[in-house]
Amino acid sequence: MSIKTLIEQRISCNYFDPEHTLGDADIKELVRLATLAPSAYNGQNWRFIAVQSASAKQNLLKHAYGQGKVADAAVSFIVCGRLDLHTGLAQALAPSVSAGILKPELAENMLHYANEAYHNQPQRQRDEAIRSASLAAMTLMLAAQGMGLASCPMTGFDATGVAEEFELSAEEIPVMLITVGKSAANNWPQKPRKTLNEVLDFA
Amino acid sequence: MSIKTLIEQRISCNYFDPEHTLGDADIKELVRLATLAPSAYNGQNWRFIAVQSASAKQNLLKHAYGQGKVADAAVSFIVCGRLDLHTGLAQALAPSVSAGILKPELAENMLHYANEAYHNQPQRQRDEAIRSASLAAMTLMLAAQGMGLASCPMTGFDATGVAEEFELSAEEIPVMLITVGKSAANNWPQKPRKTLNEVLDFA
Repeated sequence: MSIKTLIEQRISCNYFDPEHTLGDADIKELVRLATLAPSAYNGQNWRFIAVQSASAKQNLLKHAYGQGKVADAAVSFIVCGRLDLHTGLAQALAPSVSAGILKPELAENMLHYANEAYHNQPQRQRDEAIRSASLAAMTLMLAAQGMGLASCPMTGFDATGVAEEFELSAEEIPVMLITVGKSAANNWPQKPRKTLNEVLDFA
Repeated sequence: MSIKTLIEQRISCNYFDPEHTLGDADIKELVRLATLAPSAYNGQNWRFIAVQSASAKQNLLKHAYGQGKVADAAVSFIVCGRLDLHTGLAQALAPSVSAGILKPELAENMLHYANEAYHNQPQRQRDEAIRSASLAAMTLMLAAQGMGLASCPMTGFDATGVAEEFELSAEEIPVMLITVGKSAANNWPQKPRKTLNEVLDFA
């Protein structure tokens, strides 16, 4: 199916088939594809927690204001953004250096500039964590759509509660939940959008 | 081409064919597809400025630290996130109400909750602006890939300079630039990523 069709058919799914499950291989493939999203400096400042066990789903539900889709969907991803892009960058770039794509001197330069950009800059760190995690999240949702699955991005949850319950580090913030599974009946169609005139200008 | 292949083949393109141009219809189609991305409450708290004229590209270049791709690519989108999701929500939801998808009472409830979430909450407003704009940005990049085009997301620019130069309103922040055009030679391949073990946990 073309990307155009996938984008046009994606809905934010509220009702999932609670009997449907996803194997670890499918979950891993979704996250593998999500991590091919771009991030600043290729810093990959994200982490994914795949909530799939019945007990973990119940724990997540407590912090998601009881929204049942968290329990009904085959899996709910907690998409975390990391605040420590700059200190984690050497590790993130190591495979590119090993592969001969990034020259070591250039990688060193990137570390320098990333440190200048983010060291002691909590707002920039947070912005970048949200940006990178969101790019990966959208990629994951479209990859799921391509696998015939439905998804729902959720920001309506208690971030502090989720962070504590799932033991996020101090460097991680839960940017979004994404439920993924098989669509059940009675979901809304994709909602109409503002006209292009309202959101697009040429310069 | 499958979404999997598009995701795997997408690169952050540094070198664009400067002779290649895009017509307004293609630019509009890219933004139309981008706006089918999800956003909190379907608030669509984004705006896109398609920088395509030679003079506007030069103005953008000044605030993008001279990164030539801004001028060489057929178009550079300034993807703006809006801080006023809650006050703009009635307008954003109007087409869904008109189409009979959202009952008016439910739309009213959504306005109420959005106001509770964002009114006088500048950090939440900013988070949501970055999140929504990034979801749309990723959708735009994959849509471009599906049209045989290359793209590059950029956060390395002077946000204040861009906001002034392109007359963003006080409610808008430039979340990302996305250059779109035809790939030239000498671009990097897609860089390798961290292993799944480093970024995925099951719960």
